[in-house]
Amino acid sequence: MIRPGQIVFTYFHFAASEELTQAMIDSKAVCIAYETIVGPQGGLPLLTPMSEVAGRMAAQEGAKYLERAQGGRGILLGGVTGVAPATVLVLGGGVVGTNAAQMACGLGAKVYLLDSYLPRLRYLSEVMPKNCFPLMSSPATVRELVQEADVVIGAILVRGAKAPKLVTREMLGTMKKGAVLVDVAIDQGGCFETSKPTTHGDPIYMVDDIVHYCVANMPGAVPLTSTMALTNATLPYALDLANKGWQQVAREDEGVKAGLNVVNGHVVYGEVAEAFGMNSKSVDSLL
Amino acid sequence: MIRPGQIVFTYFHFAASEELTQAMIDSKAVCIAYETIVGPQGGLPLLTPMSEVAGRMAAQEGAKYLERAQGGRGILLGGVTGVAPATVLVLGGGVVGTNAAQMACGLGAKVYLLDSYLPRLRYLSEVMPKNCFPLMSSPATVRELVQEADVVIGAILVRGAKAPKLVTREMLGTMKKGAVLVDVAIDQGGCFETSKPTTHGDPIYMVDDIVHYCVANMPGAVPLTSTMALTNATLPYALDLANKGWQQVAREDEGVKAGLNVVNGHVVYGEVAEAFGMNSKSVDSLL
Amino acid sequence: MIRPGQIVFTYFHFAASEELTQAMIDSKAVCIAYETIVGPQGGLPLLTPMSEVAGRMAAQEGAKYLERAQGGRGILLGGVTGVAPATVLVLGGGVVGTNAAQMACGLGAKVYLLDSYLPRLRYLSEVMPKNCFPLMSSPATVRELVQEADVVIGAILVRGAKAPKLVTREMLGTMKKGAVLVDVAIDQGGCFETSKPTTHGDPIYMVDDIVHYCVANMPGAVPLTSTMALTNATLPYALDLANKGWQQVAREDEGVKAGLNVVNGHVVYGEVAEAFGMNSKSVDSLL
Amino acid sequence: MIRPGQIVFTYFHFAASEELTQAMIDSKAVCIAYETIVGPQGGLPLLTPMSEVAGRMAAQEGAKYLERAQGGRGILLGGVTGVAPATVLVLGGGVVGTNAAQMACGLGAKVYLLDSYLPRLRYLSEVMPKNCFPLMSSPATVRELVQEADVVIGAILVRGAKAPKLVTREMLGTMKKGAVLVDVAIDQGGCFETSKPTTHGDPIYMVDDIVHYCVANMPGAVPLTSTMALTNATLPYALDLANKGWQQVAREDEGVKAGLNVVNGHVVYGEVAEAFGMNSKSVDSLL
Amino acid sequence: MIRPGQIVFTYFHFAASEELTQAMIDSKAVCIAYETIVGPQGGLPLLTPMSEVAGRMAAQEGAKYLERAQGGRGILLGGVTGVAPATVLVLGGGVVGTNAAQMACGLGAKVYLLDSYLPRLRYLSEVMPKNCFPLMSSPATVRELVQEADVVIGAILVRGAKAPKLVTREMLGTMKKGAVLVDVAIDQGGCFETSKPTTHGDPIYMVDDIVHYCVANMPGAVPLTSTMALTNATLPYALDLANKGWQQVAREDEGVKAGLNVVNGHVVYGEVAEAFGMNSKSVDSLL
Amino acid sequence: MIRPGQIVFTYFHFAASEELTQAMIDSKAVCIAYETIVGPQGGLPLLTPMSEVAGRMAAQEGAKYLERAQGGRGILLGGVTGVAPATVLVLGGGVVGTNAAQMACGLGAKVYLLDSYLPRLRYLSEVMPKNCFPLMSSPATVRELVQEADVVIGAILVRGAKAPKLVTREMLGTMKKGAVLVDVAIDQGGCFETSKPTTHGDPIYMVDDIVHYCVANMPGAVPLTSTMALTNATLPYALDLANKGWQQVAREDEGVKAGLNVVNGHVVYGEVAEAFGMNSKSVDSLL
Repeated sequence: MIRPGQIVFTYFHFAASEELTQAMIDSKAVCIAYETIVGPQGGLPLLTPMSEVAGRMAAQEGAKYLERAQGGRGILLGGVTGVAPATVLVLGGGVVGTNAAQMACGLGAKVYLLDSYLPRLRYLSEVMPKNCFPLMSSPATVRELVQEADVVIGAILVRGAKAPKLVTREMLGTMKKGAVLVDVAIDQGGCFETSKPTTHGDPIYMVDDIVHYCVANMPGAVPLTSTMALTNATLPYALDLANKGWQQVAREDEGVKAGLNVVNGHVVYGEVAEAFGMNSKSVDSLL
Repeated sequence: MIRPGQIVFTYFHFAASEELTQAMIDSKAVCIAYETIVGPQGGLPLLTPMSEVAGRMAAQEGAKYLERAQGGRGILLGGVTGVAPATVLVLGGGVVGTNAAQMACGLGAKVYLLDSYLPRLRYLSEVMPKNCFPLMSSPATVRELVQEADVVIGAILVRGAKAPKLVTREMLGTMKKGAVLVDVAIDQGGCFETSKPTTHGDPIYMVDDIVHYCVANMPGAVPLTSTMALTNATLPYALDLANKGWQQVAREDEGVKAGLNVVNGHVVYGEVAEAFGMNSKSVDSLL
Repeated sequence: MIRPGQIVFTYFHFAASEELTQAMIDSKAVCIAYETIVGPQGGLPLLTPMSEVAGRMAAQEGAKYLERAQGGRGILLGGVTGVAPATVLVLGGGVVGTNAAQMACGLGAKVYLLDSYLPRLRYLSEVMPKNCFPLMSSPATVRELVQEADVVIGAILVRGAKAPKLVTREMLGTMKKGAVLVDVAIDQGGCFETSKPTTHGDPIYMVDDIVHYCVANMPGAVPLTSTMALTNATLPYALDLANKGWQQVAREDEGVKAGLNVVNGHVVYGEVAEAFGMNSKSVDSLL
Repeated sequence: MIRPGQIVFTYFHFAASEELTQAMIDSKAVCIAYETIVGPQGGLPLLTPMSEVAGRMAAQEGAKYLERAQGGRGILLGGVTGVAPATVLVLGGGVVGTNAAQMACGLGAKVYLLDSYLPRLRYLSEVMPKNCFPLMSSPATVRELVQEADVVIGAILVRGAKAPKLVTREMLGTMKKGAVLVDVAIDQGGCFETSKPTTHGDPIYMVDDIVHYCVANMPGAVPLTSTMALTNATLPYALDLANKGWQQVAREDEGVKAGLNVVNGHVVYGEVAEAFGMNSKSVDSLL
Repeated sequence: MIRPGQIVFTYFHFAASEELTQAMIDSKAVCIAYETIVGPQGGLPLLTPMSEVAGRMAAQEGAKYLERAQGGRGILLGGVTGVAPATVLVLGGGVVGTNAAQMACGLGAKVYLLDSYLPRLRYLSEVMPKNCFPLMSSPATVRELVQEADVVIGAILVRGAKAPKLVTREMLGTMKKGAVLVDVAIDQGGCFETSKPTTHGDPIYMVDDIVHYCVANMPGAVPLTSTMALTNATLPYALDLANKGWQQVAREDEGVKAGLNVVNGHVVYGEVAEAFGMNSKSVDSLL
Repeated sequence: MIRPGQIVFTYFHFAASEELTQAMIDSKAVCIAYETIVGPQGGLPLLTPMSEVAGRMAAQEGAKYLERAQGGRGILLGGVTGVAPATVLVLGGGVVGTNAAQMACGLGAKVYLLDSYLPRLRYLSEVMPKNCFPLMSSPATVRELVQEADVVIGAILVRGAKAPKLVTREMLGTMKKGAVLVDVAIDQGGCFETSKPTTHGDPIYMVDDIVHYCVANMPGAVPLTSTMALTNATLPYALDLANKGWQQVAREDEGVKAGLNVVNGHVVYGEVAEAFGMNSKSVDSLL
C-alpha cells in the first residue's frame, strides 16, 4: 500500500497507461521515474541498463522465433556455409538498437541499422562490426528494407512519450511470410502499428503471417543479469535520496528533477499530462 | 513403402536405434547413410552441413533456455555493461563445436572450447574470436569447467558409433542451478548421462535443476536453411548414384562405399553391427 | 628470335590465342607455360602471384570506374556515413576472387563471394572479413545477384581452358545502368559474354550502359610489384631448369611436366589441342 | 541570376578565390557557406559528408595513380604475398584524413596518420585498424616520412582559411620517383607547395617526377553518393531557413550565424576579409 | 639549486611525500605540478602520456615476473595451444588500466577490467578486444577475482590524493602462490596494502609468496618513448608559461591554475594540505 | 644413471653438443629425441609446443630488454599515443616465428615476418594481425630490415641440423645502438653469428652495443605452462612406447623411427653424425 508522501523510485512509463497515472495521482506519492532521470551528460542513465538487456535479447528472440515450429520462416539467423544469412533491420541506433545490432552481427546476420542523427551514425560506422551497415533513416528506406528483412527490431524511444509507428499494417503485406517483428518499444506503446503487449508466458502472435514478439518488460526474463545491471546504476541515486530527501536532491540535480513525474497528486511531467489531456503543475513550485 | 533393392539415400544414425536398423534389414533396401559417407580429403561431407546448422542453433538454444521462464538461471548470455557474460563450455572442437563456439562468442559469452587433437586446437587458436579459449580436453578439465559453466554444449561425434558420456549424473550436482545442457550428439545417443531425446514441440526437461535441451534433429527447426545447405552437399552424389548405379559408384569412390550401412538385408557397416551384436557382411562381397 | 629447342619459360595462355599457339609450334621451341605448372600440393604456383595482383587490382578498378566521369554509376564503393556502400559480386572464390573480395571488403563494400566448392566456402567463412558473404554458386544465384550488384568481378579460372560465360548479354539488361564489370578471366577468353580484351591505355568500353573493364595482363600496370611477386615464385624453377635441363626436371617433377604445352613443334597439352582442333602428342614420348 | 537579398546556401570556400568573393559582394545576396556552419557540439556538419567522400576517394585515387601507365611507381597499394605493401602518409587526422586512412588500411597499405592534437590521436589509436600508425605531427616527422612514402595525402583543413604548405617543392626531390601526392585541401588552396587545381577530366600532372592529383571538388566524381550524403545533412537546415528566415535562424543558432560569410554586400566572416585585405562588418549588426 | 620565485614545472606527486612538500615550501618556488593540470575538456593531459607508458609497461612486467626464475608462478601470460592463458585483473579503467588491459589482451591473457563508472565501462565494451571483460568494480568482486588472478594490476588514480588500498594483506593469503602484483599507483602511495616503492635496479620483493612489482617512476625505464610522449604534451604549456609568465597563464586558463600546488612558500592545493594537516592558501590571492 | 638399453625419451639437440652425443653413445641407451619425431602430416609434433612457448616468450623478452636499465634503447615496444612503436623483425615464419610475431603484434609493434615459402606467407597474410607484414626472405631484405629493427628475433629451425647464421657480426654495426637480438635457435647453435648460450640467471650480454638474449631452453622459465603443453603432446607416444616397446613402435610409425638418434652405442641420425664427422648406422638394421 502506497502512502501519500512516500517516495516510489522505479520504472513507471506513465505515457503508456492512463490507469497507472491516475492511480499514482490518487496515491499522492512522490513518483520518481527511472526512465526520465537525465544523466550529467544527458542520456537516460537508469533506462540504459534495461535498454542494453532488452536490445541484446531482441536479437536472440528474433533468432528463436524464426524457427518453423514457432511460426517463423524456418531459417537460421547466421546462415551456414554457402547459405545466405538472414537480413536484420534495426530501427533506431540508440542503446537498444546498437545492442540488438551487435548481437545480430555476432550471430552472423546481415544487419541494417537505421538512425537519423548523423554523428551517431558516424560513431557506429567506426565501432560496429563490418556486417552492420548503418544507414540514415527515412520513411522510404524503412519501406524498402522491410521487404528484404527476415527480422525487424523496433528500437525507437522518444523520452517520456509514445513511440512513433514506423511499420504500418499495410507494410506487413510486403514482407516475407514468417518474418519476425520484435517490438522493444512496446513499453512506450510500441513502434509497429500491429503491436500489442504480450508476456514471457505467451510471447508471440501472428498478424498477416508475420510473427510479432512484443513482450513487455523483456528484461524480466533474465532477472539475475537485469538486477545486477540496474543496481549498478540506481544505487548511487537511492543512497542520495535516502540521505538528503527528494526535494533537496531535485534542487541540486537537474537530472533527478527531470525524473519527477507525479508528485503529491499532481502530474509534473509535461508529456505525461499531454498524453492524457490532464493538467500539469510546475515541478519547481513543489520544491 | 520401401521396396527391396531401392536406394535410400538419407540420414539413418543406425547406431542409435536398433528398431530402425532391423526395419531396414527387413526391407532389403540399399541404405546409404549421409552420416558415414567420407569425403575425398576425409571428413564427413554430408554430415557437415547439418553439423553446422546444429552447432549454430545450439548456442542460440542455450541462450534462450537460460531465461527464467524456461527454468534457466535467468541470465543473459552476453551479459551487459558491467555485468559478466555467461560461461559456455563446448565439448568437442569439430564442426558442431566450432560453430557453436562462434555463435556463443558472437553473443559475447566467455567460451571454453575443448578438443583433444593438438593440430585442431592450434588452428582454432588462430581463427576463433578472442573470447574463445581453446583447451586440451581431459576428464579433469571437463569436471572442473562444468562447475563454472552456465551452458554446456555436447558436440562430440564418433563416426557411426555411440557418443561417450562426458558429463555424468553425479557432475550435475556440482553445477549451478538453472544451468543449461545442450546435447547436439543426441542423434548418436547423447554425450551426457542424463540425456534423452526430445522434440521441437517439447524441447526441454529438468534433471537435478539442470535444464536439458536434447532435441533430436535440431536442423528440422530451420528447414529452409537446412534444405539449402544439405542440397548443396548431396546433389552431386545423388546425380552420380542415379547415373551410374550404387554399385559402380561405390567401386569407384571409397567415400561412398563407406556410406553403405545396410544392403539387401545385411548390415555392412561394422560399428552398427557391433552396437547391436548383429553379424555384419563385407561390403565388397556385394559390389 | 626464338630458335628451335630453346626453352621459353613464361606465361602463354595458349587456349586464348590460336595465332600464338601456331607461332610457337612453328618455332619448335620448348614452351613451358607458367600458368599450367602444378605445385607439390596441387595448385598453380606460378599463376598464383599474378592472380593475387589481378584480384587486388580488380577491386580498385571497379571502384575507379564507378566514377561518373568514367561512365559509372557515380557512387563510392564504400559509401559514407548514412549512405549504403556498393554491392560487389565476385564470381569465383579462388585466388583471384578471394583477393578481389578482400580489397572490396577493405573499402567497405557489401561483398557476395560465390564459389561451388563447399570446403573452400567453409574456409572463406572463417577467414574473410564480416562484410564478405560467401555463397554457393548457381545459375539462379548469379542471375539474381547481378541485378543488385554495382560491380561484378569475374574471377573464374579453368586451368588451361576457356572460362565459362557466367554473365550473358541478356543479363546486362537487368543490371543497374552504370554498373561495372571487371573480367579478370579475360586472358582465358573472359567469363562475361560481352567481354573483349582491352589495354591499360584504353581500358573500358560500354555495352548496354554497363562499363566493361577487360584489360588483358592486368598486372602489367604495377610492374614493380608484379615482377617481385613473380620472381619470388619462378626463381627456384628457373635455376632448376638451367642446372638440369628441361627433360630431366620434367621427369623428376610431375608439376613441371604439366607446364609443357608446346614442344619441338608439337602441342603436348590436351586442352590447348582441343581448343583449336589440333592433334596433341603425349608429352612422355618426348622426355 | 542571383538577386540582392536572395539566400544562397551552398559551398563557397571564399578564401580560395577573391574573384568569387567580390562577385558575391556585388550581388548583395545572403551567402551562407556550408563549410563554415558550426554544429551544436562544434565541428563543421555540412563539410563533414563531403570530407568523408573526399577522404575515401583520396585513397582510391592514390592507389589508381600508382599504376605505371599513369606515371606512378608501378606498385600495388596493398602489395601481394611476400611483397611489401605501399607506405601511405596521411597529413591530418580529421574527417578527411581518417577516412583516407581507413580506406588505405582496408587495401592493406602501411599507413602513417599524422595529427597534432593528442586526444584525437588517442581516439584514433583505439578505433583505427592495426596497420594504421597514428603519430604526432611535426615538421621533422613530415620531412622524414615523405621520403619513405609511396602516397602522400594532404588532409589539412583550417576552417575558412588557406591550408598551410606542409610539403615544399624542395622536399619533392627527396621522394621516390613516381610517388603520388593527393591534395584534398586543394579547395582551400592546397597543402603542398606544388599543388594547383585540376579536374576530373584531366586529374594529374607531374612535378619533379612526382604525380600530383589535385582535383577540385573531388566528390563530384561520385554524385549519387555525394548528393545523398549532403542532403542527409543539409535538409534540416534548409527547412529551418525557409520556415523562419535567415535572420531569425542566425539569432537562435550560433552555428548558423557562423555560416554567414557575405551579406548584403558586406564580408562578415573575418578570415575571408583578412585573406584579401578587405574590410569586414560585424554580423550582429545585420541581424 | 632552486631559487625563490623560480618556476618548477614538472611531476611532484606531493601527497606521497611530506618531505618533498616541505622542501618546496621552503624554496619559495612556484611549483606547477604536471599531474594536477586539467585539460580543456577535463582530464589530466600531462599525466596521460606517462599513464599510457606505465599502463603498457605494467602488462609487460606482469608477464616477465610470472617467470619462475623471478619468483613467479612459472606460467606464460598468453598460454599456448591447449593450455589456458593467465588471468589478469586490472583495477581501474582509466588511462593506466585501459592501456594495461590492451597489452595483456594483446598477449592473449583473459583480462578482467574493473571500473565503477558505467559510461566508461560502456565505452570499453565497445572498443576493447574480446578477451577483455569490463566489469563493475565492488569490494566483493575484487575479493573474488583476486583469487583467480595470476596478475593483478593496480591502476587507480585519485587526482592529487592518496590511492585507496584495494587489495589488503589478508587477501594475499587467498591468492595463488607466485602471482604477481603490479602497483602502478605507487607514485600516489600505492593501491595495495603491502606495496612499497622499488627501483628499476631492484624492482620486486615477495610478501606471503606474492611477487610485488612497485617501481616508482615506471616510465623511466623507457626514456626515449617517455620523453617524446611527454614533450608532445608539455611543449605548448612551457611555451605559454615562458611567453606570458605563470600568473597571466593561470588567470587565463583554469586548467593551469589547477596545476599550482606550492607557490612562494604556501601550499595552494587543498588535497596536499589535507594530506599533511598543513594550512593552505587560496591560489587566487596570489594571482 | 642411464643404463644400456634404457629408453631415454626427451629433448637432446645432439647437433649442438658433441659432448652430449658422445656421452649417450657411451651409455648404449636408446635415445629418442623429441625434436626429430615427425607427425602423421609431417611437422615436428613434440617440438611444436616448446616452439610455441619459446616464440611467445621471445617477444616478451624483446620488450623487456629494450628497457634502458637492461642496456636497451629505452623504448616501449608498442609506443604510446603519438609516438611510433618499435619495429620487430622476425626471421622465420614457422611455429616459433609466428608465435613471436603474434605477441609482438599484440603489444602494438610494427612487425616484419620473413619466410621463404610462398604458401606459408600466403596463409600468414590471411590469419595474422594487420600490423604484421609477412615478406619473402632474402639476404638483401634481412640486411636492410636489420637496420630499421629495434628487436630481431631469430626463429629459424633446420631439423636436426645447425641453424644458418642470418645476422653477421658485421651487420651489428649497421643496427641501432641498444637494439635487442633474441636468438630462439640457440639450442640448434643459434642463427646470429655473435650468439652464445646464456641462462635465465644471466640472460643477456652486449656485443657492439647490441643486446643479445640467447637463453638456452627458454621454456624452462615457465615450467607450469611448458609441462602442461609438452605432456599434452608426449603422453600418447609415451604410452605407446611403454606398451609395445620401441622397436615395434618404430617399425609401425615412420615418425617415431625418425626420432631415433643414438641407439645401443650407434648414431643412427644422419645429420648428427655429419655434424661431428662420426659414422652413422642405418636405423633399420637395429629394428
